[in-house]
Amino acid sequence: MAAGVLGFAGPSGSGKTTLMERVITVLRDRGLRIAALKHGHHTADPDVPGKDTHRFRSAGARTVVYSGPDRWFLIEDLGPGEAPPSEWHLELLSRNHDLVLVEGWRAGPHPRIAVHRRAFGPFDWWQGYDALVAVATDDDEAAGAAGVPILPLDDPAKVADFIVAHLELPVG
Amino acid sequence: MAAGVLGFAGPSGSGKTTLMERVITVLRDRGLRIAALKHGHHTADPDVPGKDTHRFRSAGARTVVYSGPDRWFLIEDLGPGEAPPSEWHLELLSRNHDLVLVEGWRAGPHPRIAVHRRAFGPFDWWQGYDALVAVATDDDEAAGAAGVPILPLDDPAKVADFIVAHLELPVG
Repeated sequence: MAAGVLGFAGPSGSGKTTLMERVITVLRDRGLRIAALKHGHHTADPDVPGKDTHRFRSAGARTVVYSGPDRWFLIEDLGPGEAPPSEWHLELLSRNHDLVLVEGWRAGPHPRIAVHRRAFGPFDWWQGYDALVAVATDDDEAAGAAGVPILPLDDPAKVADFIVAHLELPVG
Repeated sequence: MAAGVLGFAGPSGSGKTTLMERVITVLRDRGLRIAALKHGHHTADPDVPGKDTHRFRSAGARTVVYSGPDRWFLIEDLGPGEAPPSEWHLELLSRNHDLVLVEGWRAGPHPRIAVHRRAFGPFDWWQGYDALVAVATDDDEAAGAAGVPILPLDDPAKVADFIVAHLELPVG
């Protein structure tokens, strides 16, 4: 069965990473296998100079996979002008996971929860998100304008409940 | 089309990583998109504490993907007793690559080139490798016993030629 997909959206500093972290723990503890997909604007390279993977990449390999007894990782360098294969990431994460939580990827087709904190000013940026299904906030009044369920920003169990119900996830 | 798959096998220190590195460069320069799959016996973790990917994993995500403008990476922690999904790695590397070069993965079904250096003692370990298709060596005499083509250890272009011919790879 395909994994459910849900994103967290919000301005930098709104606390979406922290909320996502806390929701991951709640849902993992309920028995779900979670993948986290983060889109970023800067280029990260987790490879370590001197390791064989780094040597193979430096020699010209487009992609390396290191497969160890408890963990494996893959690093792929995209060609010039190539877009990140985001749809394909969802597809590959469907294997072995019940839920993919997404941070970033503004153009993605998945449903998402907006994260809004009163201290961060007016809640107007959500209007660009067609796929908004809820707002996690400490500012019920402003968030009410979005016309979707309002979730308590500081209660990840409640946010997790919403995700399970919305995506009809198989929790025990 | 599925990518071709070929492995390098040899004792630690025989120079198989160096040979694979040099072959990668030759074949990349001939226009092939190369993936390198390395099997290791120790657990490597390329993730950086403090990064969002690390936070998500620490929170309980089984897998993280970071997708940036020029590169993406994936890290998956296997469950207890779970085997690395090596066959699936080959399948996923077929996307966007012409050739997967493999180091390690002794039980894999792919054809492989044994790397033998005279200084490393008798060439007897190859007998475990059913899928041996050539020996890259500086010791023609010993390698001759294997009954497969002998390739010059220090000439990666010749080794690359063999791989292209053996796998019928599409080089320009």
